[in-house]
This record gives sequence, C-alpha cells and structure tokens, in this order.
Amino acid sequence: MIRFQCDYAEGAHPLILQKMAETNEEQTVGYGNDPYCERARKKIRTLCDAPEADVHFLVGGTQTNFTVIRSILRPHQGAVAANTGHINVHETGAVEATGHKVLPLPSEDGKITADQVREYYEAHWQDADHEHMVQPGMVYISHPTENGTLYSKEELKALYEVCQELGLPLFLDGARLGYGVMSEASELGLADIAAFTDVFYIGGTKVGALFGEAVVITNPALKKDFRYLIKQSGGMLAKGRLLGIQFDVLFTDDLYFRISDHADRLAMRLKEAFVKKGYALRYDSYTNQQFPILPDEHLEKLKEKYSFGFWERMDASRCVVRFCTSWATKEEAVEELIRDIEVL
Amino acid sequence: MIRFQCDYAEGAHPLILQKMAETNEEQTVGYGNDPYCERARKKIRTLCDAPEADVHFLVGGTQTNFTVIRSILRPHQGAVAANTGHINVHETGAVEATGHKVLPLPSEDGKITADQVREYYEAHWQDADHEHMVQPGMVYISHPTENGTLYSKEELKALYEVCQELGLPLFLDGARLGYGVMSEASELGLADIAAFTDVFYIGGTKVGALFGEAVVITNPALKKDFRYLIKQSGGMLAKGRLLGIQFDVLFTDDLYFRISDHADRLAMRLKEAFVKKGYALRYDSYTNQQFPILPDEHLEKLKEKYSFGFWERMDASRCVVRFCTSWATKEEAVEELIRDIEVL
Amino acid sequence: MIRFQCDYAEGAHPLILQKMAETNEEQTVGYGNDPYCERARKKIRTLCDAPEADVHFLVGGTQTNFTVIRSILRPHQGAVAANTGHINVHETGAVEATGHKVLPLPSEDGKITADQVREYYEAHWQDADHEHMVQPGMVYISHPTENGTLYSKEELKALYEVCQELGLPLFLDGARLGYGVMSEASELGLADIAAFTDVFYIGGTKVGALFGEAVVITNPALKKDFRYLIKQSGGMLAKGRLLGIQFDVLFTDDLYFRISDHADRLAMRLKEAFVKKGYALRYDSYTNQQFPILPDEHLEKLKEKYSFGFWERMDASRCVVRFCTSWATKEEAVEELIRDIEVL
Amino acid sequence: MIRFQCDYAEGAHPLILQKMAETNEEQTVGYGNDPYCERARKKIRTLCDAPEADVHFLVGGTQTNFTVIRSILRPHQGAVAANTGHINVHETGAVEATGHKVLPLPSEDGKITADQVREYYEAHWQDADHEHMVQPGMVYISHPTENGTLYSKEELKALYEVCQELGLPLFLDGARLGYGVMSEASELGLADIAAFTDVFYIGGTKVGALFGEAVVITNPALKKDFRYLIKQSGGMLAKGRLLGIQFDVLFTDDLYFRISDHADRLAMRLKEAFVKKGYALRYDSYTNQQFPILPDEHLEKLKEKYSFGFWERMDASRCVVRFCTSWATKEEAVEELIRDIEVL
Repeated sequence: MIRFQCDYAEGAHPLILQKMAETNEEQTVGYGNDPYCERARKKIRTLCDAPEADVHFLVGGTQTNFTVIRSILRPHQGAVAANTGHINVHETGAVEATGHKVLPLPSEDGKITADQVREYYEAHWQDADHEHMVQPGMVYISHPTENGTLYSKEELKALYEVCQELGLPLFLDGARLGYGVMSEASELGLADIAAFTDVFYIGGTKVGALFGEAVVITNPALKKDFRYLIKQSGGMLAKGRLLGIQFDVLFTDDLYFRISDHADRLAMRLKEAFVKKGYALRYDSYTNQQFPILPDEHLEKLKEKYSFGFWERMDASRCVVRFCTSWATKEEAVEELIRDIEVL
Repeated sequence: MIRFQCDYAEGAHPLILQKMAETNEEQTVGYGNDPYCERARKKIRTLCDAPEADVHFLVGGTQTNFTVIRSILRPHQGAVAANTGHINVHETGAVEATGHKVLPLPSEDGKITADQVREYYEAHWQDADHEHMVQPGMVYISHPTENGTLYSKEELKALYEVCQELGLPLFLDGARLGYGVMSEASELGLADIAAFTDVFYIGGTKVGALFGEAVVITNPALKKDFRYLIKQSGGMLAKGRLLGIQFDVLFTDDLYFRISDHADRLAMRLKEAFVKKGYALRYDSYTNQQFPILPDEHLEKLKEKYSFGFWERMDASRCVVRFCTSWATKEEAVEELIRDIEVL
Repeated sequence: MIRFQCDYAEGAHPLILQKMAETNEEQTVGYGNDPYCERARKKIRTLCDAPEADVHFLVGGTQTNFTVIRSILRPHQGAVAANTGHINVHETGAVEATGHKVLPLPSEDGKITADQVREYYEAHWQDADHEHMVQPGMVYISHPTENGTLYSKEELKALYEVCQELGLPLFLDGARLGYGVMSEASELGLADIAAFTDVFYIGGTKVGALFGEAVVITNPALKKDFRYLIKQSGGMLAKGRLLGIQFDVLFTDDLYFRISDHADRLAMRLKEAFVKKGYALRYDSYTNQQFPILPDEHLEKLKEKYSFGFWERMDASRCVVRFCTSWATKEEAVEELIRDIEVL
Repeated sequence: MIRFQCDYAEGAHPLILQKMAETNEEQTVGYGNDPYCERARKKIRTLCDAPEADVHFLVGGTQTNFTVIRSILRPHQGAVAANTGHINVHETGAVEATGHKVLPLPSEDGKITADQVREYYEAHWQDADHEHMVQPGMVYISHPTENGTLYSKEELKALYEVCQELGLPLFLDGARLGYGVMSEASELGLADIAAFTDVFYIGGTKVGALFGEAVVITNPALKKDFRYLIKQSGGMLAKGRLLGIQFDVLFTDDLYFRISDHADRLAMRLKEAFVKKGYALRYDSYTNQQFPILPDEHLEKLKEKYSFGFWERMDASRCVVRFCTSWATKEEAVEELIRDIEVL
C-alpha cells in the first residue's frame, strides 16, 4: 500500500532525528526556555522580518488553534471562519469547548473575503438585538486552505486591512504553510504573512517535523501571558527543546522550504496527470493536496494499491477524493501512480 | 405607541400579582422547596399525564435552555437544532459558552424532521473521521417555533421515535407553548408533548407570568442532580416560591390556556386582515406571531402608531415584519390595527 | 414556626408590589432598556456619587457573581477571595464552571486584608514556575461578609490601593449591602464603596426586593460589552423593567436604608439578648446575621418554635447557629424570641 | 552545571531514538490507530493483568489529567484531591478551565486517606445546602506523589474500596509511576494499580520517553468515546505512532523498569548522603525525588555546580530543596555530588 492519504504518514526529516540523537544527552531547562528554542525563535523572527514577534512552540494544530483563539476572545465573542475551516469541521468542537462559537461564513473553496467579513460584522452591529448574538471578535483563515487553495497578496492584504479597521485580530492557520509559500502560485512569503496578520502559525507536523507548530505573534496586544495559556491548554511540552530542535533544523539551510517545494512539485505532476486523463478537479489547487473527481470504478482500481482520502460524493458515479504529497513522498511513488492513472 | 413587538411588553396576568400580594408576608423555605412550588408541580404533572415527571422552575428561557443542554451532554457532544433555533441565533452563544456546539440543520420554517436527524446522525457515524467531529448528543426543537409554526402529532412522534432509536434525548423549548397548544391548528396537547419528548419546558415569561419557565423531565435518566445544575447555572431563585405561585395561578381554572387562546384568536384576526389586504405571509403561522410581507411605505405608515419587529428584507420594496399578540393584547388594539391596515 | 433562618423568607416590601401592580398594564421595551431601569440607574449613580458609573440589573447573586467575574478575567486568571467567600463555598462551583479557579486566602471572620493580597500576588510572581499556576487576576470580597462582619473604611481603602497598584480589579459582593451601610458599626456608605472598588453590587433579593441585584461598574475598563455577558450568562430578564421598578422603589424616600436599619436594630437586640444570657458569639457581627454559640439542649428547645440556620459544631455540647433578621422581620417576633431566650 | 532539577532534562532513552530512526520512513495511519500503538497497548494490558482495559496515548501530563477528569465528571461535580496534588497546584487551573473545581483535602505528605474521602463525601451529603456546593464526583491521587511518597497496598485498596462504595471513580496520576513501582519501599506493581483504580496513567515523559503518557482505563463505564475527548482536548497526536513506538520500546525487555530502578537506586544513595551529613528530610521519600533541608550557605555553595529545585523556606537559615534523579542520571554525577556534600 502506497499512502497518499495525508501528509503525516511518515516520521520526520532525517536531519531532525539526527539532531535529536546528537543532543539527546544534553541537559536543558524545560518548557521551551532552552537555547534550541531560543535559536529557532531568532531564525523565525528573521525569516518573518518581524524582529519584535513573540514565537511559541506547541505540539499540534488543534491545540494551537484553540489556544490562540481563547487567548484573544472575551467570553461573548466568536471566531469568524470559513464554514469549511478546520476549527469548524475537524477539531471535535475544540473551540466551542473553550466557550466560543465559530461563526461560519459560506465558502466554496476554503477562502473568505474582506467583503464577507465586513458585511458580517456590520450586520451584527446593525441588528437591534446584537447583544443577543455572538459578537465577532476575530477572524480565522487557513493558508493554504483545507481545499488546497491560496490567498493572493491582494486578498490577504484586503482581509487584514478590514480586520484592522474593525478591530478584529486576524489569525492564520498555517498547518501546511510550507506547501503554501513554495507553491508556484504563491504570492505570499513568510514576511508577507507576518505583515498581514496579527498572529499565525508555521506548521511542522505536516511539513517534516515529528510534531510541532510555531506560533508567531506580531500584534503586541496579543502577546501578554501567552505561556500561561499554553500551559493551561495542555500544550506546554516538558522537554520543550524537542520543538526548538526541530524548528531549528527546519530553518537551517532552507530545509523547510526545500522539502515543501518537493511536495508541491510532485503534486503538480499528479495534477497534470489527472487533468490529462480528463478528470475534473474539485478545487484548483497549486499545493500539496489535489482533489480530482474520479469514476467509482477507477477509484476501486486505485484502492488496490494506493490509499487516499474520500472527500465527498459528486454524483451517482463519481467521487471527489484527496491525494496528498508531502516532504516524504517519493518520486517513484508518484511516477508509479501516474502510470497507473494513465492506464485506468 | 401600541406595541405588537413582542409577547413580553407588559407585566403579568393580574391574578398572579394578586396572589403574590396575598402571600407576600408568608414565610417559606427558599430555592423552590416551598408548598407553592410543590402544588404547581402536582398540577403540571397531572396536566401532562406524567405522574413521575420531575418539574423544576427556572427564571428565563436562555438560562433554561443552556441548563438543560449542559445537564445532558458530555463534553464532546453537541445539540442538533434547526439553524433558526433560538439557541443557535439569539442567545449570545450561551450553549457554546458551556462548551457545546450547536449543530444546525437547515430549516425553512423553523422545524426539523425525523429524516434530517437520522441522516445527520448516520453521516456522522459513517464518516471515517467522526472522532474529529462533534458527536450529535441530543436534539433541540421549539414548539411553536421561532417562526410561529407547529409540529403535527405525526411529525413530533416521528422525531421522538428516531431520537429514541438513536439514543438522542429530545428537548422541546416551549417558550410559547401555550400559544402552541391552543392554536386552532394544534394537534398536540401537554400530555402529547410530555409523551413524545424526554424533557421540555412550559414557558411562563411570554404567557402571562412576570417571568419563569417550568422544566418537565420525563426521561428518568435525565433527572439526576438537576438542582445542582440549576444552582450552578445561576437559575435557582432564592425566593423560589415566586415561581411556584405563578405557575400555580396559571394552572388554576385553565388560566394558562384561556389567555393563550385569547392571543391566538387575535393573531388569527390579524392574519386574516393581512391576507385580505393582499399581503403575502413569510410563514404560515397559526399562533401568536404573524409574519406578513409589507411594502416599505406601508411599514413607515404603521410605524407612526405601532411598534412591531423587523424580520428581514424581502426585496427592494418589501420587508418581512413580525406582529405578536399576547395574553395581554387588547381587542381594541387589534381592531384599531386592522382598520389601519384596511386603509393603507 | 417563626423563621430566622435567612433574609429571604418573605416576598417583597409592599411598596414594590404596589408599584408593580400600578404599572402592570404599561407596555415597555424589554431587557432593561425601559424608563424604570433608567430612572433606577440615575438614582443609584447619584447615591453612589458616581455619575459615570454603568449600572446593570441582574436577577440573583450567584448569577451576578459569575457574570462579573468572567467579564473581567482572562482564561488563565483566577479570583482571589476569602476561603469563606460565597463564590468559594456556596455557589456550586459556578465560577469554576466558567473556567476560573477561586484562589482562597485564609480568613477567620470572612474578611481578607490588603497585606494578604499583596503577599499572595508577590508570591505568585516570585515563583519560578508561576506560569504553571493560576494567575491572580482580581479580588473578590463580600460586605457585609458571610459572617456578618464589616470592612472599616481604612481596611477597604487599603485593599483598593493595593489592588490598584497591582492591577487587580476589586469586586465587592453586596448581597446584604443595605445591612452593611446601616449598621451602627458601619464606616462605609454607598459613595465610599463606589470610590474604593472597581465594581460592586447592591443586593435586592435579601433587602426588600422580590429578587434582583444592581451591578455598579465604576472602572471604565470593565464596562465594555457587559450586556452581552449578562445575556450569555442567562441573567437578562425579558421583562427587565421588573428590576428597574424594584430598585426605583427601593431608592425612593430612602426605603432601602430604612428597611435595612430596621433589620440591623432588631439584630442588635437579639445580639444583646444572647450576650446577656451568657452565650459566646462566633463572630462579632453588627449586621443582620448573628452567630451565637448555644448548648445543644437550648437549640432543641428553640427549634420547637423557631427556624434558624445550623452553622457548625463548636464542641461536644454546643453549636454555632445563625439567626437572621431582615427588612420583613416583625418586632413582635424578635421580642418573643428574646423572652424565650431569657427563660432557656 | 549538573542538573538534578527535574526528571525531564534530557531527551529519551537511546533505544527509543533508535527505533524512531529505524521506522522513520514507514507509512502508517495516524491518530494512534497504527500497529505500533496496538503492540504497545497489548504489552501494557498484559503487564497490568487487565486484558479488557482500554489504553490510550497522550502527549503530556497536564493534558492527560484534564482530559481524563472532564471525561468522567458531570458539570456540577469536582475532583477530590490532596491540596498538594499536581492538578491543584501546578497546572495553571487546567481542570477549572474545563469547568470543574478541584476539591482539596489537607495533606502533609501528598497522600490522602480512605477516611478523608469518606468524611468529605458524607459531609457533603449531610449538608442541608449540598446542592449549593460542588458535588464530589471522583478522586484523584498521584503515585508516587509530588512529594516522593508512596501509597501502601493497604492504603490504595482502602481508598479504592471507599471509592467503589461511594460511586467515585478513582484516578491515579502516574507521571512518575516507574519510580514508584521500582522503589525499594514499593508494595504496588502495575497489576495492583490496575486492580485498585478505575483509570490511571503510566508516565513516559519523566521516565525515559521523549514525551507521552499511557492512560489505562479499566472501568468499562469510563471507556466510552474517550478518543473524542482526546481529540477535543488537543491531545491526539497526528503521528500517533510516535507514542506507540516509545511505549513499545519502554515495555520491551523491561526497559521501563530497569531505568526506573536505576534512578531510584541513585536517589537512595543521595538520600543516604544527606542523612549522613545530618540534614533532615522534609518527606521520607523512597523514590527519585529527595527533599533535604539544607542551610542557606550550603545551598549557595552547591548552586555553583549543580542545579536543583527550590521547594520552600523552612526557617530563617534553612530551605527545603528538591533533587531529582532520572533514568538518565549518571552514576558519576551522583558520586561527585555526594563527595561535595560530604565536604560542605
């Protein structure tokens, strides 16, 4: 079985394991106050062109999302998000478990627009009963989205400017950020993302680390006491250096970017193969997730050899499925899959 | 200004105030353990043909909804409801504030169906990632709905049977229950509602009381420790007898039903007047809320003399508005309004 | 049975019921935006010498406490309080249910000191692991305390100054505030309390109202969006005017103060009788709650005719009990009790 | 600087890193459903003599504690614990953040007794106002405790029997469980602990793993839907196999027990040195944490070369400090420290 089901099927990039082994016997203080975390923080600040940013390391994405969100909102506020957003769909209501409603905006491709945010906000405040409704208190977006799509620079800037104007912190979930910034369609580097958000995270779990997400807080108003929130939310790793080491390695010699680029290129080859074969695509993704629409019998055939994700039924005879590449995907695996697609 | 804006613009039925005055100097124990509460409980059990039911009195609707819901659900579960449901729209996210997501089903008229519940439930469990999603843990409906509509006996029975089959407690929000059971279109009396739900409440605030809602728990599994939940949720009135007295009076000599009937009849006369005038109705309501679609210029005219609720814009020149009657609405006020409608 | 068990055994002062009856048929807007609430707000601002204060009306004490506290704290913060404080002992963990730990300080008589607060705060910040502990985020006190005791002006001022210095909002629970300000031992009027706290509430439930507490927010930083919090917490009464009417009546012609004075004077006569009889007092209270230590056989005797609260066992043969007077206590009842004490 | 400050200063046992490297390129399903987790589960069930137990892997201790606790309690219930318990002191109120009060019992040495639990429980139910207080819903203990002490078999059995009788699930926090079961003073093996608790966890973070805790649920009533709770609480590792691999290695060839024994033996040598030197011990610990009471000037001297934890000031001239050994502590380091103690 060759897995294209997700981007977290393997362990970590070997350089990470190597560094962990090398440093294994060193003694350091815990909870992220060690020199490795400090070094990784510095690199991230530099890459983001955000010398004043606070950088924190958490273990996983769901944890990171609800920790950031509950650190920002007051009890009567909710997080505006695409209805397709990970926090709205695939985190077992973790945000609600912290007391906050996710306020979903309709989205076809995983993105929301500055206009949508403005309209939602204004509708809230124009409603005579607004105190009886959850107040929009921040905006959550994913980049790349759960559908593989990307915000253009103009789109993100417009969102950020509206958020600034309305007093809504903008939080970008970058679980797959590497695959976003390295996409051939990308207009946004780390520094742009840092400039046009209040807080975001750089995903490690899906981009070469064993686990770990790096939260970057650029808005000074959101920095206070964040470490208390991490601890209370169960996200403070005792051996915090394990996170520092990983991000230090990932941001040495552009490793993070190189392995992301690898995944994106392989995904583009897959995309080409699907299109060439005549399959429609559910979303026009230029990142590591591809969503072709395949006839059921072809899916059955492919399942014998490959694992991939079921997305949704399209019609009586076709389904949307998801193929992911990752930093770990082998060229040969993709070539084999392409050959198998060609002969379907 | 004559108010048709809501059904809680006045105080209470005079008999309630009279009884409060008569009993004012009596000394009783607090927190709902007094003889008045006990007497009201007995009457409610009899009316509901539910001799084993637990009956509790709370102060208001939002409080009642979230107290019941959090008493039932485990942390990873949510409450399935119409997207139009009060808990989803007009309670400032009170259910989410207790940690639970409201799981909205699409609804055009405020009702949901047994089939919708079953499909939603089955889709959850069929999803390979169901543990990453909020588990449906109960079903919430309103009767009458926020749109003035009513469940038929068949519809409620079907919902209850599906809920029973799937292990989902069914909770009915009866904030306007009197106006429901006395509607000319009603197929459901209190005993039917008690028979086809696990827990429901009989609204007092909107039906003649100063305030107060009577929760009726028929499912034994939901009874345990409910008083702790009331106290913790801020709903346990120190002078609990004030609730007992009110419901005791409301259920003496059919007062609750008579005043509900009064409101429904006046609403039907209003409805007739709207239809006769040629206005379409947004929902086909047979209860005390009416939702006519009026041209903007007519609305402006009516606003000079009457208050009523804005519901939504229908098109460039027309809006949906809400007129409520209540136990306190005067016949003369309705007649005057009808005359004014006729000459619009 | 004559009840001295609590100060909420009867209904309301007759003038309140009278006003409710007079205004019963008036139509007003809901949720506290009516003219009666506005009038009561103005009177309270004047009495408190706090023309800029926000005044909100809620239904009961537990609700008020957790609504105020959750409106102030961030998720990792707790409320510092006497271990005897109502929020720590008698509210079924309502504060914890909103996510915040109560941080108890030892107290013998229900009061805490400025020094205790400072030491606790400094110990927190000096601890190397402070991020692993709940951060003190505000201070909660009761006045009178649950033990009937009172803060002197100097004590309250010192507490407030420490709180100001440390950035901890000071919240005063005034469930029995009337009995405090009218005590012969009182050094603090409403204006003093408004001056030396950030937010407090004036209790109605235990001081002549059917129900209701008036929250007074003097610190501008705590005012924002408080009405959302009330609604979400289930404390926004639909017929909000019922609260406005009650406080309007209570603050007309000094009614609130006169009825509080009545209760305090009767309590002092009781206290005198206990002391004269040779009973020790558990707390030296000058307010409407008295805590004599009585031999078991005397308690049994008194129980035949009077109800009163059990507080704690003192030793093998004696218990502390609580006798409350209230605005509604009859002189004759107290005289009868005193005679019965004398002949024990 | 030689660190005796904690038992998580280094990475992981080399065999764990080796196994991670060997399996790094394998593709597995995520979220703990992989063969490594399954294998580790089987070994744990066998060691615990609990063939029906559910075994789940979480990342860290705080996360594990609040996830287990919120999976068990209803909203009005709290967790009874020693006032010294980790959940009461050092988890930033994580349990309260999930809505539940920790109900502290006084403890001198970190342990609580069956009698304390029974008395607390009975006092709750005997109180006439018990509905106004948090209901004890479960019992939390640590073994070894935060003070290094151990429950005897009789003590744990008595606790469990009382808990069974009172309907309170007993949860044992085994963050340092290895150091407990291998202590020369230990009467309890894994199978005993499984037999005398409802749920417990086997700590990995402090006993040789990079991170990870293995929750063992033996009470069938507590098993339902636990994976939802893990996910919602942010504890479900995407690459779940990393946890499986670690526990698989730890429970291969008794590694877990051998490295725990190593730490305990070194701790006993340290203890002996302290005693020989004439220092008193704050707690009589037979596990990897030692709490000697040292004169300030000796502490200053030791600090030049060693790091260790400050515990509390004993008197004007002495402090309690904590020295930890771990699976990773080197014999030479302990010998060097002992020599330095001898010449203080």
